[in-house]
Amino acid sequence: MSNSTNSQPTTAEVAPTDEVQEIKLLTSTNDDHGGVIVEMDEPMDSTTFVSILRASISHWKKLGKKGIWIKLPIHLVNLVEALVKEGFWYHHAEPKYLMLVYWIPESANTIPANATHRVGIGAFVMNAKREVLVVQEKSGFFRGTGVWKFPTGVVDQGEDICAAAVREVKEETGVDSEFVEILAFRQSHMSFFEKSDLFFLCMLRPLSFDIQMQELEIEAAQWMPFEDFASQPFVEKHELWKYINEICLAKIDGHYSGFTPVPMSSDSREKKKFLYLNDRGLKRCNSL
Amino acid sequence: MSNSTNSQPTTAEVAPTDEVQEIKLLTSTNDDHGGVIVEMDEPMDSTTFVSILRASISHWKKLGKKGIWIKLPIHLVNLVEALVKEGFWYHHAEPKYLMLVYWIPESANTIPANATHRVGIGAFVMNAKREVLVVQEKSGFFRGTGVWKFPTGVVDQGEDICAAAVREVKEETGVDSEFVEILAFRQSHMSFFEKSDLFFLCMLRPLSFDIQMQELEIEAAQWMPFEDFASQPFVEKHELWKYINEICLAKIDGHYSGFTPVPMSSDSREKKKFLYLNDRGLKRCNSL
Repeated sequence: MSNSTNSQPTTAEVAPTDEVQEIKLLTSTNDDHGGVIVEMDEPMDSTTFVSILRASISHWKKLGKKGIWIKLPIHLVNLVEALVKEGFWYHHAEPKYLMLVYWIPESANTIPANATHRVGIGAFVMNAKREVLVVQEKSGFFRGTGVWKFPTGVVDQGEDICAAAVREVKEETGVDSEFVEILAFRQSHMSFFEKSDLFFLCMLRPLSFDIQMQELEIEAAQWMPFEDFASQPFVEKHELWKYINEICLAKIDGHYSGFTPVPMSSDSREKKKFLYLNDRGLKRCNSL
Repeated sequence: MSNSTNSQPTTAEVAPTDEVQEIKLLTSTNDDHGGVIVEMDEPMDSTTFVSILRASISHWKKLGKKGIWIKLPIHLVNLVEALVKEGFWYHHAEPKYLMLVYWIPESANTIPANATHRVGIGAFVMNAKREVLVVQEKSGFFRGTGVWKFPTGVVDQGEDICAAAVREVKEETGVDSEFVEILAFRQSHMSFFEKSDLFFLCMLRPLSFDIQMQELEIEAAQWMPFEDFASQPFVEKHELWKYINEICLAKIDGHYSGFTPVPMSSDSREKKKFLYLNDRGLKRCNSL
C-alpha cells in the first residue's frame, strides 16, 4: 500500500478486476493530531484535482485520519471552488495562500480556531529631564487633532513584544532604546473586523536622544515635559489615558512593578521564548 | 453621480454619446482609512461580477479611494478566482467567508496585517488546604504521560481573558471560580502554522470545590497538594514550569503582584474593555 505520511508523491493500488491500477494521491504529511497536511504547488485543472482529491480522502479515511488541511497558494486559486464543493471550508488566509480544512469522522470536529488577536505596543520613553518621547501621527484616529501621544505600532507575526517596542521607537523617532518592562495591557474587541486586540504599554530606557522623524507616518516628534503631556485636554478626558499616566507616574516614582521579559531556554530548533513576569515580586520572595 | 458611501445599491451615470446609461456598481461602505468595504451576498455569475467590479473600481479610483475590501461568503466561492485575476489578494478568512483586498493608488499599500496571535490561558486555582486544581488531558502533548497540569484553554474571539479563565475551569472541572489576576504571560512563535501565541498564567479563587470532569477532553481531575504538583519530574525538568511554580509560590506567600483587570468606561456601543495593571503598585503610590 502507499504511504501518505512522507512528502513524496504517492499512489494507491486498487484492483477492480484482475489487474492492478495505480491511482494518484495528494502528497501529504501527518500532523500531531491525527490529521494530514497537503501543501499544493503544481498547477492542475480542477477536474483532475477533484478525482485525485476524492481518492485521497477515501485513502485517508481508511487510515483513520481526521482533519485534512490543504494549503493552496494564491496561484492555484482555480482549485478553491472545487474544494468548497467537496465539503472543505476556509480556515485562514494570508496574502499568498488560503488554508482550507475538512473533517473526516462523524464526530464533532476539533479543528483549532484561527488566530484571534492583533497585538500592538505603546512606548513610554523618558529621559533624565523627565521629558517623554511623543509623536503626532499623519493618519489614524488622532490625525489633525494636535494630540501628542506615545509612539505606537503593531507587533509583527513572529516578533517578540519587547523587540517590537524597540523597533517602533527607532522607526518613528530615530531614538535607540532598551526595553525595561510591560507596565500594563489592554484587551479590546471588534477592533479590526471581528478580531480582538491586545495593546501592551511598554517602558523603554532611551540610549540616544536626537530625534529623526519617520516622514511617512509621523507629522511631528519631540521630547515633552511629562506634565505637559499628561495635562493635554484629550488625555485628561479619557479614563484609559488617565490610567496610563498614573501608571507611568507610579513607575517614575519607583513604586510600580510591571512585567519584565525573561528568556526561556528551549531546544535549538525553536526561537527563544520570553516569559513576562514581575521580577521584583519574584526576587523579594526568593531572598526571604 | 452615484454615492458609494451608503449601503444601498448604487449606479453610475455615464454618457458615451448623447444618452445617459446606467451602470451597476457594487454596494459599498466607507472605512476610516480612505477605503471601501463591500459585503457580497447575492449570487452572481463571475462574468457579470467582473464587469460590475471593473466599473466599481474605476468609480472608486475617481473618488480617490485607496484600499478596497471585499468580503465574500463561502457560498459565493465561484467569485474568488475572478477577484484574484483582477488583482485582489487574500487578507484573512474565517470558516464562512473570505476577505480579499485590493489597493488602488500607485503608492505602497498600508493595508493592516491580519490577526497574528492566538491567546490561551492556564488557571492556577488553589483551595484553603494548599491544594491546587489539576487535570490530565485526553489529547495533546501530555496525553498518556501521567503529568498533572493546570486547566488550560483557548481564549475565544471577542472573549475577555479573565472570562475565558473562569469558563475553562468550569468546563474542564465543574469548579466555579472568580478571577484574581494575571501572574505572568509567555509569548511564543510558530505555534500554529506561522502564527504566534500568547499564554496567560491566571490565578483564580475557587467558589466551589466538587469536581465534575468534562469527559470529552479530560482524563482525570483532582485537588492535589501543591508540593506534589510542583515535584513532578516533568515540572522540575522544564524551566518554564519551574518559573510558573516559583511565581505561584511567591503569590501564595503574598510577595508577588500580577496584573488585575480594571474595566474601562466606554461608550455604550462598545463591549467593556479591561486594562490589566499592577493594582497594588498603583495603590501604594496613590496613598503616598
